[in-house]
Amino acid sequence: MATAAFDKLAILGIGLLGSSIAHAVKAYGGAKTVALWDGAEDVRTRAKRVLSAEVTETAEAAVTGADCVILCTPVGVFGEVTQLISGALQSGAILTDVGSVKATAARDMAAHCPEGVHLIPGHPIAGTEKSGPEAGFASLFQEAWNILTPLKGDDEVYAQAVDRLIGFWKQLGARVETMDPVRHDRVLAITSHLPHLIAYNIVSTAYDMETVEQGEVVKYSAGGFRDFTRIAASDPVMWRDVFLNNKDAVLETLGRFSEDLAALQRAIRWGDGDTLMKEFTRARGIREAIIDAGLDTAEADFGRRHIDPSADK
Amino acid sequence: MATAAFDKLAILGIGLLGSSIAHAVKAYGGAKTVALWDGAEDVRTRAKRVLSAEVTETAEAAVTGADCVILCTPVGVFGEVTQLISGALQSGAILTDVGSVKATAARDMAAHCPEGVHLIPGHPIAGTEKSGPEAGFASLFQEAWNILTPLKGDDEVYAQAVDRLIGFWKQLGARVETMDPVRHDRVLAITSHLPHLIAYNIVSTAYDMETVEQGEVVKYSAGGFRDFTRIAASDPVMWRDVFLNNKDAVLETLGRFSEDLAALQRAIRWGDGDTLMKEFTRARGIREAIIDAGLDTAEADFGRRHIDPSADK
Repeated sequence: MATAAFDKLAILGIGLLGSSIAHAVKAYGGAKTVALWDGAEDVRTRAKRVLSAEVTETAEAAVTGADCVILCTPVGVFGEVTQLISGALQSGAILTDVGSVKATAARDMAAHCPEGVHLIPGHPIAGTEKSGPEAGFASLFQEAWNILTPLKGDDEVYAQAVDRLIGFWKQLGARVETMDPVRHDRVLAITSHLPHLIAYNIVSTAYDMETVEQGEVVKYSAGGFRDFTRIAASDPVMWRDVFLNNKDAVLETLGRFSEDLAALQRAIRWGDGDTLMKEFTRARGIREAIIDAGLDTAEADFGRRHIDPSADK
Repeated sequence: MATAAFDKLAILGIGLLGSSIAHAVKAYGGAKTVALWDGAEDVRTRAKRVLSAEVTETAEAAVTGADCVILCTPVGVFGEVTQLISGALQSGAILTDVGSVKATAARDMAAHCPEGVHLIPGHPIAGTEKSGPEAGFASLFQEAWNILTPLKGDDEVYAQAVDRLIGFWKQLGARVETMDPVRHDRVLAITSHLPHLIAYNIVSTAYDMETVEQGEVVKYSAGGFRDFTRIAASDPVMWRDVFLNNKDAVLETLGRFSEDLAALQRAIRWGDGDTLMKEFTRARGIREAIIDAGLDTAEADFGRRHIDPSADK
């Protein structure tokens, strides 16, 4: 195992991401000791049961002596949590996060981050629809991209801190990229935020159909709907905060989505098969690029996720 | 193995569904012999390579002597294909299909179905995003729902034919339900047709973003987008025909979807976190019902489909 990047790692917020980092550090290294804290007493109690690392009663206790602090709470409380720990952060420490938005996250953390602490926002693109301290597992970050959005490139001490943080994530198996926070928020608006919004919305629409019974929706969900329910099972608080904190990029992307959808709607209404064919065909191009990049080997499967088809493939 | 429901089964259209039925009959029974035909010479040639059943040069040859004929072409040519075989269909035979829409499919087949042939439209809710004769596999229908939409319940000979067809599908592993065709089209509009339209549309929107490079969309697709590209890789011709043939139900469902999306858009614009929370939270209810019904044991996975996390779970 490589030398640990950090002596003491503090993880604030013990959900899927926080608990996964604790598991991953135990499995692959990255820090000599780990302390975790969560704002909810119930979560701390559950975390003590399932994690083999220290769970502290206060955020300050977790942070004290830590050379790296990772915020894993919903992004909506980043400012508040940073304020809570600002007195306990040691000079030279790294303050980072795993939030799905970066511009407002950086702003909220920066507002309370003491001088001498290296603020390096980050976002590992990894997760499942599960939440809570029981949901974490060590391999979550393996081969997943992690985007860091460093604030200043010209400071040598800061650049060294960035390198250290990159080394930490690589030790957990992640691939690391750096990017401007505003660009991050634009890219993720289309690759992650809009897909989640759409998934939540279609499940909501299904809920309200008086012409179709909910039991029928459940029973025949294998035709595509089921995949959306999986995405829409993600943590509501986390996603509320994402949308409230990436408003401009999401609204811009959503506006385009709605325009495009209106064009498809018009094509359906007027029986314009050529337009439908054109749009449906080019979707395959992006799919092939994803497969070519080795980023997905899974198949869509409508009606057979629960069985193993390998026997007669 | 149970007694075969049919002596000779004719499969017209050799895509994912047609080839899967041929594999399934070979694996689980259901018919003593199988003959397949496809309108495309290229597909017939490829089918001969990968299937161990007779592939005929004409539709009539496949149908001659068959006591069951299954249309597995795109629904847009059901009328045309039925016309092509109407002279060769034997009295007492069953004519059925696997089309994703049922009202227009029934209408188009009925227009050319001879007296004495039992028309029983059907729709197995099973598939993957792959297409072509190479895509089929025997277990596709295992535990999948298959909805039959019989035309008349009061004719005893017809009712016997329906029972025979139900027995055939059960032999392939499917669970069978009967339903009114208009109801089928409404239910599938929300559980399958709209999800596919949305998936195609979001991929299309991503394609046109000038502010985000396509390479970035591909690279960071694990955040949710990738799951949509998988659905959007489905056969464009098949789906064009679905939307052209289930116009009313799709437009009605799409109208509701767009209304609901506009409400979420407004909540994002005005920072209305309570509305977002309310909508996001209730999505979990349907997800739990699907899991409780044993209809999905898979997890969403953003960033790790390509690796096996079982080692440290």
